[in-house]
Amino acid sequence: MRKSMPLNTLRHRYFQLLDGEQAFSITGKLINGFIIILIVLNVTGVILETIPEIGEQYSPYFQILEVFSVLVFTLEYLIRVWISAENPKYGPGIKGKLRYIFSPIALIDLLVILPFYLSFFINIDLRYLRLLRLLRLLKLSHYIRSMDIFIKVVASELASLASAVFAVLVLVVLAACVMFALEHQAQPEAFKSVLDAIWWAVVTMTTVGYGDITPVTAGGKVLAILIMLLGVGTVALPAGMLAARFSEELQDRKSAMTAEVINALEDGELSRNEKSMLARLSNKYGISEEDLNQIIRNKKLELGHQLHCPKCGAHITDKI
Amino acid sequence: MRKSMPLNTLRHRYFQLLDGEQAFSITGKLINGFIIILIVLNVTGVILETIPEIGEQYSPYFQILEVFSVLVFTLEYLIRVWISAENPKYGPGIKGKLRYIFSPIALIDLLVILPFYLSFFINIDLRYLRLLRLLRLLKLSHYIRSMDIFIKVVASELASLASAVFAVLVLVVLAACVMFALEHQAQPEAFKSVLDAIWWAVVTMTTVGYGDITPVTAGGKVLAILIMLLGVGTVALPAGMLAARFSEELQDRKSAMTAEVINALEDGELSRNEKSMLARLSNKYGISEEDLNQIIRNKKLELGHQLHCPKCGAHITDKI
Amino acid sequence: MRKSMPLNTLRHRYFQLLDGEQAFSITGKLINGFIIILIVLNVTGVILETIPEIGEQYSPYFQILEVFSVLVFTLEYLIRVWISAENPKYGPGIKGKLRYIFSPIALIDLLVILPFYLSFFINIDLRYLRLLRLLRLLKLSHYIRSMDIFIKVVASELASLASAVFAVLVLVVLAACVMFALEHQAQPEAFKSVLDAIWWAVVTMTTVGYGDITPVTAGGKVLAILIMLLGVGTVALPAGMLAARFSEELQDRKSAMTAEVINALEDGELSRNEKSMLARLSNKYGISEEDLNQIIRNKKLELGHQLHCPKCGAHITDKI
Amino acid sequence: MRKSMPLNTLRHRYFQLLDGEQAFSITGKLINGFIIILIVLNVTGVILETIPEIGEQYSPYFQILEVFSVLVFTLEYLIRVWISAENPKYGPGIKGKLRYIFSPIALIDLLVILPFYLSFFINIDLRYLRLLRLLRLLKLSHYIRSMDIFIKVVASELASLASAVFAVLVLVVLAACVMFALEHQAQPEAFKSVLDAIWWAVVTMTTVGYGDITPVTAGGKVLAILIMLLGVGTVALPAGMLAARFSEELQDRKSAMTAEVINALEDGELSRNEKSMLARLSNKYGISEEDLNQIIRNKKLELGHQLHCPKCGAHITDKI
Repeated sequence: MRKSMPLNTLRHRYFQLLDGEQAFSITGKLINGFIIILIVLNVTGVILETIPEIGEQYSPYFQILEVFSVLVFTLEYLIRVWISAENPKYGPGIKGKLRYIFSPIALIDLLVILPFYLSFFINIDLRYLRLLRLLRLLKLSHYIRSMDIFIKVVASELASLASAVFAVLVLVVLAACVMFALEHQAQPEAFKSVLDAIWWAVVTMTTVGYGDITPVTAGGKVLAILIMLLGVGTVALPAGMLAARFSEELQDRKSAMTAEVINALEDGELSRNEKSMLARLSNKYGISEEDLNQIIRNKKLELGHQLHCPKCGAHITDKI
Repeated sequence: MRKSMPLNTLRHRYFQLLDGEQAFSITGKLINGFIIILIVLNVTGVILETIPEIGEQYSPYFQILEVFSVLVFTLEYLIRVWISAENPKYGPGIKGKLRYIFSPIALIDLLVILPFYLSFFINIDLRYLRLLRLLRLLKLSHYIRSMDIFIKVVASELASLASAVFAVLVLVVLAACVMFALEHQAQPEAFKSVLDAIWWAVVTMTTVGYGDITPVTAGGKVLAILIMLLGVGTVALPAGMLAARFSEELQDRKSAMTAEVINALEDGELSRNEKSMLARLSNKYGISEEDLNQIIRNKKLELGHQLHCPKCGAHITDKI
Repeated sequence: MRKSMPLNTLRHRYFQLLDGEQAFSITGKLINGFIIILIVLNVTGVILETIPEIGEQYSPYFQILEVFSVLVFTLEYLIRVWISAENPKYGPGIKGKLRYIFSPIALIDLLVILPFYLSFFINIDLRYLRLLRLLRLLKLSHYIRSMDIFIKVVASELASLASAVFAVLVLVVLAACVMFALEHQAQPEAFKSVLDAIWWAVVTMTTVGYGDITPVTAGGKVLAILIMLLGVGTVALPAGMLAARFSEELQDRKSAMTAEVINALEDGELSRNEKSMLARLSNKYGISEEDLNQIIRNKKLELGHQLHCPKCGAHITDKI
Repeated sequence: MRKSMPLNTLRHRYFQLLDGEQAFSITGKLINGFIIILIVLNVTGVILETIPEIGEQYSPYFQILEVFSVLVFTLEYLIRVWISAENPKYGPGIKGKLRYIFSPIALIDLLVILPFYLSFFINIDLRYLRLLRLLRLLKLSHYIRSMDIFIKVVASELASLASAVFAVLVLVVLAACVMFALEHQAQPEAFKSVLDAIWWAVVTMTTVGYGDITPVTAGGKVLAILIMLLGVGTVALPAGMLAARFSEELQDRKSAMTAEVINALEDGELSRNEKSMLARLSNKYGISEEDLNQIIRNKKLELGHQLHCPKCGAHITDKI
């Protein structure tokens, strides 16, 4: 820490390796691969620990894995906070660092190491501590690029989803109460209260159908048939809507990309600047390089056919 | 009721708070939030009352909640009838009031308080009275804006849905009858009549699959396999169609909104009048302010690229 | 049969009532309603007859219903053959009649009455005769208009559906054989042969999940998890594809309709001839009158905004 | 092998019969039909052999079928390697042959005969040998044309599918661990370790719902309800996305085909060359001849309405 320049250069290099352009270089892949493997090992560990024979026999190994993982994740967290200054999204200075620290992704990174340190000061039930370790799975979202489209689609459909969820809840509660009235006397054990009927209604309407509680009266069966036929549609609706919206979002991004390509091609050629601009945009929109190249090829072809005024022979620049 | 003006002003104020522009002010949110909480409390109450221990022990509290809720909902109903004159949809005068009183949403509001008053005059079985209280859930539809798109989509797809439902019913009845012929002798108890077979067919085709009745003969199993493979597709079809149609409806509304934006942008700028007109339309179409702003931004950009007349070189204002 | 004209007039009147423009007049609705009710009664009868107590007690009534229904359906069949000459689809003369008699819809009409007459000559097992009566359900397809879109969509997607069904079958057979190898020794009773494993695979992949056979070995459970996650997607795919295709077909028909509207509006107005032509087309495309009117309104509006060359002031007729 | 010409002619004839233009001639259909039937017989054989009574009694017949099938498939494999030179995709010479031999479809053809020959040299457990025979099912992909669209769609959606699968896995693991913590004490037998809980979570979230393990505590049931409602949507999403993408891909191919048709129609007519070019393209895009003809008809109609240059009054050939 004697000179600022080399430190900044180092910071820049780390940023490039973890989040930047060199994330796909060999060193970058090794680092990221190591962290992914460690996450998967951690989750596997939590699961295996619950198998009595394994949990007892290999207990010390699980503890070593835990300490080692926490050390690595702590180091990763500190480095990520340090290099956040290189990310234009957060910016430099204390303010930028705080912006990063309170971003969801950094909070997850903190949450997965915090319980370990806290357990020295306060007495946490070991069982729940173990469960918290599972949140390390969420660290994988660093590496899933299309996750942000996923989140954006869900967010943009919230209003429509709300009405579908509302319909589902109303159906569940109404069905449960009527079913309770119909079946309570015939099966006082299975349908003890409306809560049991709600359990039945959700198990039925999601088509899980365990079969632990089923109606036995004629009225109950008729109601159940109606609920099944209605319920299937209602519960499947949100997923169908999300899927359609997802597909549209991808289409919209392609259209936006195409508009940019047309713009860049207006003079008939792609300059180097325009190419790198398009590459940056395609990265932002989550469009693969292959798809980008195909869009450019198509548009070049299309611009070959232009409107001709057959008399004056002049071109009419048209947009498609 | 001495002077008409202040009363009208009061009515206008209440309308703004409950349904109008001030519904999202702090007072408006408090009032609406209070009613929503009361509805949720009511439904929770009905459910908890059926749990024997709780139902007996807290019986007086449930009764207090009931009386209080009915009073509040009655007050709300009367106020809503009174302020309906402010809503251009119903209009002023006795005629407007009647139009409001017989609108579906007002009928629901009436239906959820009526049983309480009726129980003084006629002897209603308490159990069914309790179930009617659940209809208070439907009062929540005051607050779900996208509900009307939902209803419109279902209505516009009724013809297509009818053919899908018809296919499902035909499949269910045919499958049940053939299954009955195949399994009746092997399992006279499980498949007593075609009604049991219909129960089996619906449970199977909706993929609920309780497992309370399953075919055991070879023929029955072969038929069941065919029914499952066919049934899944047929029963899932209506939900898929609704989802696709829903997504289109949202798209159509965006297109209609876009057309209005282009129209308003024809002179290159948005006047204040045009802006408020667009805001009103976006509210009507259920399009969020954010989406509206993005449409305006996009269209402004697009109008930058224009057609050129090749002879005179002048711009030609084009629609997209 | 003394004079040809009145008979032809009568034939024309019957055609109008059953299939033509007067099907929605009061008399037409009464006739069609009567047949629909009779069909529903027949199906209900077949189902109720299988309930032992009812089947024995009301046996004579079921027989009366049967004879009455066959008489009505025979009369209907003969009238439909007779009036088929009025339908331009089949044309007049013996040739037209044969064309009608061998159309799918006429074959169904024949099939639902034939077994009754045949039972006088050959000895048919009464139980199977009863099942054949259920085919009367298919007569309802006379009255479901969107059925032809349904059939057309399924037909146009046959190639894509084939590949999905092929994928499902391959998955089922492969899964069943591997599961048999894994579970046969642990559960020799449940997994007696690959046939049992196929039953398990179909029950699982369609997510019906009766639970009558489930894997118990670790290997079997791991395979089952893979099959479930893969199977759900594969089996749900055809339904999703059909739903998307259905929605497109409706969209295509609207586009075709819109093109015709634009064509008819070219001179700025709709003549009476054009209007009736559009009405006929909308009927053929299965587009409701309401939707047609909205298309016309939209297109009229759009043709109001035209391209102007700002210098010469001339209109440029553009298509959208 | 005395003269090269007749051999080449023979090779060309075989190519035409198996993969080329004569595959739909009578001889071609007979050959292909024979192979398809043999594949189906093989798979049926593997399944029937596992039924104890049949397997023992008809053992020699199964062996004859096996030897006969391997001979036929070996012959087919050798002929396909030989005629691969006729396929422009692989090209002539040793290099072309190697390219064919290592193509996926040729590797499958090899894999289904290899185990038989290997069993002479190394000792393979007969049970697993039998399972390998099932891979012969995959040979059917020679005959499923739309399979490549299917594969292309899955490949192009891999990124989006990855995020959905990631969401499913995270949900499964988190749900399983929390469920284990809630239910382990109440049902130590059913929920022995988190592995059992994972089995429960997958069975529930895919809506299979065997009912072999179900939560019994209040907390477990509440968690299960949340998991069901969330899980249904998450697990159904990938299938919905694939279906939407599939439908788009078919649409894109139609658009590409339409562009080619417009191009070919630019001079107002279709020359013979253009027609055969379009036919080849439609084959490549998997578009039926009927659809192609409809596209041509539509485009011819559309080109009737043309843009007018307002000054000179001349037609302007426009693309749509």
